[in-house]
Amino acid sequence: MTKGRLEAFSDGVVAIIITIMVLELRVPHGEDLQSLRPLAPVFLSYVLSFVYIGIYWNNHHHMLRAVHRVNGAVLWANLHLLFWLSLFPFVTAWVGENHFASTPMALYGVVLLLAAIAYFILQGTIIRSEGPGSLLAAAVGRDLKGKLSPIIYLLAIPAAFIAPWIAGAAYVGVALVWLVPDRRIERALVDKPERR
Amino acid sequence: MTKGRLEAFSDGVVAIIITIMVLELRVPHGEDLQSLRPLAPVFLSYVLSFVYIGIYWNNHHHMLRAVHRVNGAVLWANLHLLFWLSLFPFVTAWVGENHFASTPMALYGVVLLLAAIAYFILQGTIIRSEGPGSLLAAAVGRDLKGKLSPIIYLLAIPAAFIAPWIAGAAYVGVALVWLVPDRRIERALVDKPERR
Amino acid sequence: MTKGRLEAFSDGVVAIIITIMVLELRVPHGEDLQSLRPLAPVFLSYVLSFVYIGIYWNNHHHMLRAVHRVNGAVLWANLHLLFWLSLFPFVTAWVGENHFASTPMALYGVVLLLAAIAYFILQGTIIRSEGPGSLLAAAVGRDLKGKLSPIIYLLAIPAAFIAPWIAGAAYVGVALVWLVPDRRIERALVDKPERR
Amino acid sequence: MTKGRLEAFSDGVVAIIITIMVLELRVPHGEDLQSLRPLAPVFLSYVLSFVYIGIYWNNHHHMLRAVHRVNGAVLWANLHLLFWLSLFPFVTAWVGENHFASTPMALYGVVLLLAAIAYFILQGTIIRSEGPGSLLAAAVGRDLKGKLSPIIYLLAIPAAFIAPWIAGAAYVGVALVWLVPDRRIERALVDKPERR
Repeated sequence: MTKGRLEAFSDGVVAIIITIMVLELRVPHGEDLQSLRPLAPVFLSYVLSFVYIGIYWNNHHHMLRAVHRVNGAVLWANLHLLFWLSLFPFVTAWVGENHFASTPMALYGVVLLLAAIAYFILQGTIIRSEGPGSLLAAAVGRDLKGKLSPIIYLLAIPAAFIAPWIAGAAYVGVALVWLVPDRRIERALVDKPERR
Repeated sequence: MTKGRLEAFSDGVVAIIITIMVLELRVPHGEDLQSLRPLAPVFLSYVLSFVYIGIYWNNHHHMLRAVHRVNGAVLWANLHLLFWLSLFPFVTAWVGENHFASTPMALYGVVLLLAAIAYFILQGTIIRSEGPGSLLAAAVGRDLKGKLSPIIYLLAIPAAFIAPWIAGAAYVGVALVWLVPDRRIERALVDKPERR
Repeated sequence: MTKGRLEAFSDGVVAIIITIMVLELRVPHGEDLQSLRPLAPVFLSYVLSFVYIGIYWNNHHHMLRAVHRVNGAVLWANLHLLFWLSLFPFVTAWVGENHFASTPMALYGVVLLLAAIAYFILQGTIIRSEGPGSLLAAAVGRDLKGKLSPIIYLLAIPAAFIAPWIAGAAYVGVALVWLVPDRRIERALVDKPERR
Repeated sequence: MTKGRLEAFSDGVVAIIITIMVLELRVPHGEDLQSLRPLAPVFLSYVLSFVYIGIYWNNHHHMLRAVHRVNGAVLWANLHLLFWLSLFPFVTAWVGENHFASTPMALYGVVLLLAAIAYFILQGTIIRSEGPGSLLAAAVGRDLKGKLSPIIYLLAIPAAFIAPWIAGAAYVGVALVWLVPDRRIERALVDKPERR
C-alpha cells in the first residue's frame, strides 16, 4: 500500500522528467532539413539522458520489488534521488545548446555522480530498514557495476576540461554497460536489483 | 505487480505527451477570432497527433492485458516505444507551424514509422517472453492492419515531397482505419490485442 | 483491471491539465505588488478553470465507480472528453490575457459546451455498455443539473458579445451549482454519479 | 478504491508541481560557470520548495493511511490543498528571480500559510468524515508542530518587509523542524499522521 504509493509518485516524477526534456527540442522556424541541423546536439543529449533516466527507472523498479516496508527515511531518500534526477532536463539542455562544451559536460557528470550517490543512499536506507538478512542485501552483493560507475563519473568530470569527448565517451560507456547485459544478469540472478 | 508498474509508467508518459502538445497552441495576442486563424494548422496537427497517441495508448492497453510476465527486455522495448512517442509534440508543432510543408510532413511520417517499428519490436519481445503458445501470439495472428500501416507510412514519406497533402491523407487514412472498426474487431475476437 | 488503467490514465491527463494552467501565470519582472496587478485576470480565470476541471474529475470519479466493463467505445468516448478538457489551459489563458474580452469569453463557453457534450456521450456509451438496468442508468435518472448546464452555456456564448460579464456570471453560476449541493446529493442518493 | 484514486490523482498533481518548478531554471546562454551564477537564487528557492512539496506529499501520504472513507467534501478539501500547492512554482520563481526581495518573500509566506490552512481544513474534513473516535483523530492529538507552523508563517510575512532574510530563515527553520525528527516521531507513534 505505502510502497505502491511511493512507486506511483516516483513513476509520476520520472515520467514527467523524461518527457519535459523533449520541450528543449525547440521547434525551428525554417521548414527544411537544414533548420533541424542546429538541433542535432540537443537531440543527442536528449537520447543520452532518456537512456539514463530509463536505466534509473528500470533499476528503481527492480530494487523496490525486493522491498517490504517503507518508512519516513526511505521516503526522503527517494525524494533526494528524485531531486537530482529532476536536474537532468536542465543539464541536458545546457550540454546540448552549447554543443558539448567543457563546463556543461563536467556539470552533466556532477549531476550523474550526485544521482548515483543518492541511489546508493536510498539502497543503504532500504537495506537498513529491511534488515541485513534481507532479499535486497543479498541481491546487491559485491555490486561491482554500482561501485565502478561513480568512480568513472569522478574521473570524467575533470577530463571534460581536457577534452569534452572523453567525458562524453565515459557517460555513453557507463550507460551501455548498464544497458547491454541486462538480460544475462536477470536470468543469472533472478530479480537481483540492479543499479545505474 | 511488475506489469502494473510498467502500465502506470507508460500511462504517465503518454498522458504527459498527449497534454504538452497543447502547449504549442500559443495564446494569440489579439482578442478577436481573426487572431485565432494562424492557429488553425497547429490545431489540426494537434487533433491528428491526439488521435494517434490515443490509438497507441488504446492498443498498448489491449496488448498488455494479454501479458503475464515482464522482464528487462520488455521494459526496454517499452521505453524504446515511449521514446519515439515522445517526439510527437516536436513533429506536431513543426508540421503545424509550417502549415503542412513537405519536409515537416515527411518527418512526421518518419516518427510514425519508427513508432510503428518500436511497437512491432515490443510485441515481438513480449511474445518471445510469453512463449509461442501464448494468448498474445494467437491474438496477433495475421495482423494485416499492423503490417500495412508501416508500408503506407513508408510510401507517404517520399510522397510528401511531391505534394504534402498526399502524406497528410495517408496519415489521416491510417488513423481512421485504426479508429473505425474498433468495436467490430473487439466483438469478433474478444480481447484480441490491436495495434496502430 | 482495464477500468483501473482507464482511471489512472484519465487521472494523469487531468492532473497535468490542472497543473500546466498555472504556467500561464508568468512570473512578473518587477518585485513589488504593482507588478502582480496585471496577473489578476489570469489568476481569476485560473481559479475558475481549476474549479471546472475539479468538478469534471470529481464527477468522472463518481461515474466510473458505477462501471464494471470498459470496451473500446468507452475508451474513445473517454479520450474525446479528455481532448476538450485539454483545451482548458488554452482558453483560460486567452480569457485571462485579454481581461475577459467578448470573443475569448465566448470561446471559453464553446469549450465548456463541447466538454459537457463529450461527458454526455461518455455517459451514454457507458450506459449502453452496462445495460439499461445498470447502476449508472438508475443513478443518472432525470439528471436536471446535467441537462441545464449545456443550455446555460449555449445562452452564455452569444451573451458574451452583448456583455462579457453576463457569460462570466453564467460560468461561475453553473460551477457553483455543481459545487455547493455536492454533499446533500451524496447523502440522499448514496453514490449517485454526478455530472458537471 | 475511491481512496486509491484520490491518492493517485494527488500524487500526479504533486509530481507535476515538483517537476515543473525546475523549468524555471532557464538554461543560460553562456557555456562557463559564471553564466550559472545568476541562477543561484533560483536554484536555492527551488531546493526550498522541493523540500516543502516533499514534506506535504510525505504528510499527505501518512494522513491518508488512516483514512477509510472518502466523500465529496474530502475530495474538494483535497483539491483546495492542491490549488495552493499549485502556486508554489509561481512564487518560487518570483522569489528566485528577484533574489529574495521583500514582497516576493512575503507572498511566498502567504502561499505557505494558505497551504497550511488548506491542510488543516482537509484534516478536519477527514476527521469529521471518519468520526471522533477515528485513528486519525487520535493520531493528530495536540499537534504542536502543526499549530506552530502557520503562526511562524504569519509572523514571517510582515518580517519580510523589515528584512527578507528573517522570513527566509523562518521558512527554512520550519522546513527543518518537519524534516529532522521525522524518524523519531515515526518510531514513537507508529504511523501517527504528520503534517507540515
